[in-house]
Amino acid sequence: MRNFTVVGHLARTDGIFNLDDLPGSGGRIDLLCRCIQAALFLSHSLRRDTDCHLILTGDPVPPKTILIRGGEVRSLNPDERSTAALLRKALSLPVGAMFRAASPGIYVRATGLDTLLNEKAHAVAEEGGEDIRTLPCLPEAFVLSDHLNFTQEETAHFSGIPRVSVGPRSLHADQAITLIHNELDRRDAGWN
Amino acid sequence: MRNFTVVGHLARTDGIFNLDDLPGSGGRIDLLCRCIQAALFLSHSLRRDTDCHLILTGDPVPPKTILIRGGEVRSLNPDERSTAALLRKALSLPVGAMFRAASPGIYVRATGLDTLLNEKAHAVAEEGGEDIRTLPCLPEAFVLSDHLNFTQEETAHFSGIPRVSVGPRSLHADQAITLIHNELDRRDAGWN
Repeated sequence: MRNFTVVGHLARTDGIFNLDDLPGSGGRIDLLCRCIQAALFLSHSLRRDTDCHLILTGDPVPPKTILIRGGEVRSLNPDERSTAALLRKALSLPVGAMFRAASPGIYVRATGLDTLLNEKAHAVAEEGGEDIRTLPCLPEAFVLSDHLNFTQEETAHFSGIPRVSVGPRSLHADQAITLIHNELDRRDAGWN
Repeated sequence: MRNFTVVGHLARTDGIFNLDDLPGSGGRIDLLCRCIQAALFLSHSLRRDTDCHLILTGDPVPPKTILIRGGEVRSLNPDERSTAALLRKALSLPVGAMFRAASPGIYVRATGLDTLLNEKAHAVAEEGGEDIRTLPCLPEAFVLSDHLNFTQEETAHFSGIPRVSVGPRSLHADQAITLIHNELDRRDAGWN
């Protein structure tokens, strides 16, 4: 079971944003939509063995966590706008500390990164980490940041967590997810 | 200089599509927008050494070629909607067989894949090709298809062209572009 967790530092947490302006009104919700696409889509099918967690810490009611389960999700298309509409619906629901179903395979709760890291061991995908191709054994859960660096409060939870790098250039989070999947795919298929 | 060429088989060629419905009214223009993002974006910067060609063969006036030059383009953002707006503007212009500037770094002409392949040697990125990691020398120009297979007319131009595969799973074109860039980045930086 693979998992990708992406922190959207400015991502709006009440679902009140304009689908015509995802970067601005949504606090870079567009970027999170592309991460879902990279985490869950194959050509003409979905990665049923993958979960994607989004940690949203923007105004007005942070934090929230949205879970999209590749094994359960329905009516998910790769384009940003339709994916953002699903997120907007999930964020509009009243929630507490337990996951609540928003639509098939999509769940939401009012907790943050610390809770998720306590529940599931993650590696951090970031520049300066160990080259993913040289790791003898790969983690199956990775946490990535959006266009902003992890905050000090977030990195305080990373003590003892493996740090993994996907390459020599600084990339978008969705691009890093694609590269991690590829390394896992290759090892699963005996391509390495 | 790197180049990625993507064929959008159904992509609307007159610029008359709805930004609220890129997959349907645009003939999967959303997919082409994500290919531009994968080809040209680094985190907080652009790949100035990369060109991206889109070959659009959808209704009503196919074919058209749009060139987005990483070294020249301005006002390009990674989200699909704003990128599609730039493509719509380019497609609305009257054009002939020569490139015409539509906006800074974005050019359009009324020619197809055959013309581009005659101008520039490409490799084909597709399933069943040789593993990109094992190639001793990498091409710098790649042609990829959208969600549809290359047509017989297109593959007729591929005789003698190297076929390259990025991994064991069938992926979206933008994901394949990300993987090719990574392999080129690694070799350029001496990571392999």
